[in-house]
Amino acid sequence: MIETIPQVGFGLWKVPGEDCERVVLEAIRAGYRHFDCAADYGNEQAVGAAFAKAFADGLVRREDLWITSKLWNTFHAPEHVELACRKSLSDLQCDYLDLYLVHFPIALAFVPIETRYPPEWLHDPDAAEPRMKPARVPLHRTWAAMEDLRHAGLTRQIGVCNYNTGLLHDLMRYAEIAPSVLQIEAHPYLTQEKLVRLAGDYGLHVTAFSPLGALSYVELDMAGAGDSVLTEPVVTAAAQAHGKTPAQVVLRWAIQRGTSIIPKTTKPERMRENLAIEDFALSEEEMAAISALDADRRFNDPGVFTEAAFNTFHPIYD
Amino acid sequence: MIETIPQVGFGLWKVPGEDCERVVLEAIRAGYRHFDCAADYGNEQAVGAAFAKAFADGLVRREDLWITSKLWNTFHAPEHVELACRKSLSDLQCDYLDLYLVHFPIALAFVPIETRYPPEWLHDPDAAEPRMKPARVPLHRTWAAMEDLRHAGLTRQIGVCNYNTGLLHDLMRYAEIAPSVLQIEAHPYLTQEKLVRLAGDYGLHVTAFSPLGALSYVELDMAGAGDSVLTEPVVTAAAQAHGKTPAQVVLRWAIQRGTSIIPKTTKPERMRENLAIEDFALSEEEMAAISALDADRRFNDPGVFTEAAFNTFHPIYD
Repeated sequence: MIETIPQVGFGLWKVPGEDCERVVLEAIRAGYRHFDCAADYGNEQAVGAAFAKAFADGLVRREDLWITSKLWNTFHAPEHVELACRKSLSDLQCDYLDLYLVHFPIALAFVPIETRYPPEWLHDPDAAEPRMKPARVPLHRTWAAMEDLRHAGLTRQIGVCNYNTGLLHDLMRYAEIAPSVLQIEAHPYLTQEKLVRLAGDYGLHVTAFSPLGALSYVELDMAGAGDSVLTEPVVTAAAQAHGKTPAQVVLRWAIQRGTSIIPKTTKPERMRENLAIEDFALSEEEMAAISALDADRRFNDPGVFTEAAFNTFHPIYD
Repeated sequence: MIETIPQVGFGLWKVPGEDCERVVLEAIRAGYRHFDCAADYGNEQAVGAAFAKAFADGLVRREDLWITSKLWNTFHAPEHVELACRKSLSDLQCDYLDLYLVHFPIALAFVPIETRYPPEWLHDPDAAEPRMKPARVPLHRTWAAMEDLRHAGLTRQIGVCNYNTGLLHDLMRYAEIAPSVLQIEAHPYLTQEKLVRLAGDYGLHVTAFSPLGALSYVELDMAGAGDSVLTEPVVTAAAQAHGKTPAQVVLRWAIQRGTSIIPKTTKPERMRENLAIEDFALSEEEMAAISALDADRRFNDPGVFTEAAFNTFHPIYD
């Protein structure tokens, strides 16, 4: 068993199903032991096939890996939480998860697995004007069902994603089992210093998704190429000073401030590059200069993309 | 009975107790019918004395007024909510409130009324290092107790202050009685467009506090004189065009976008000025230009002032 979450994980978001088995096996060979999965990524069966092959080939054992998955929005009702978790376990070919996270603080109407899986954001994609359909499930009821998963041994730890400070305070007030991890978007353009600090005060570990910022969003047309943190002078200067790439500097900044990261790549050389950030340290001045790039620039904001893509106005950070 | 909240109310925050009776009577004479009170303002007894006098003198009847009060942070536990409401009713010398609001989404440890009232933010002001002391009361339990107040007839409507979109979504999912009003800081430097729109989508009316921005905070050293929206060229130009003061333009902008406002002043001429905003309208271009001043500039942020003043890091908006 891995007791604490490995600092550099591998993110499965946007890894196409057909590449998944190869990519996951390459990642394991490159040294990754932490895999950040989710029902919504639509590739858990392929990831599970890779895990099964890795175990069968003796590449690693289950207990050598830290496997995270996430409860999708349509499964927030207490009676659906275990169903969703068991589906992810089955797809991942695992008996237990290391960590199961509430993916968004957004409860959507249930879609049966037989109807559509993963159900994504729309209740009926074939409707004349497809929309999100909220479900009247408060977060405290979903959390109680998450706690039941831990009692049942289906996951070793539980946590949340995309919660802000207001929701985190409230969670800490109703949780019988405290969350272990908060996963949020964080990078030098969105340092989230207060949220990271508050989570730490409450004893949560923070995992930063999209640690390289815009890079995850250019392919989705949710960011422009000019939004990249990798060309910032403070980043390129630090890269040159340490003989590292700008990406390694930005990832190092993230782990040095105490967050774990889950960069995604399908290229083996990039996998190794993203892992090789333990052998140097940024100076206090370099850390501060990179943190000073903060511009409250959020790329993954349901308050923006749900209206554009799903005809539904649903801000959660404002 | 007033069925809907009057658009221009009178804010009692920071009106000193010794001025209160005079100020409230002046405000009633100036035409105010909506009074925004709170236990935490420390002046409800004086405000109540003014109401009693106004009723006795036949200036107005209780049913001509809209009276709001607010549940303080230390009374969030279900067993203390009615106690706090009855204390405000008793101080205000009223049988019912028109609106009772949760003052902050922050639950603090109970302080008995006999010990200290209002208890403010610190649990023990005489401690070596005085700090806030959180209470383990989730917001949904406080809300259920707020609903009981309405069932008991102690208040006609209930609502919340200082909730963000994340907390508002959750509230709408556990509320048996929907909130009527969301009260938030809003002014041209903090337009809160997404939050105002979401509240509207959920059927809540929005009341803007600190509608003139920094003006409320200069005296508290929480803003500088240079932070004033009243000297912005788009504001002064509109003032000149309409023959109004810059303050009237900014207040008009607020009610024209559909929010009610609760400016505070102790000066009778300023009271009349703040009320006289119904006889002109800003053009679409003027509205847009004022809205474009938005700079996400929040003056009333517990994530900043609680640490400076109370040795306690407690962000709620990040």
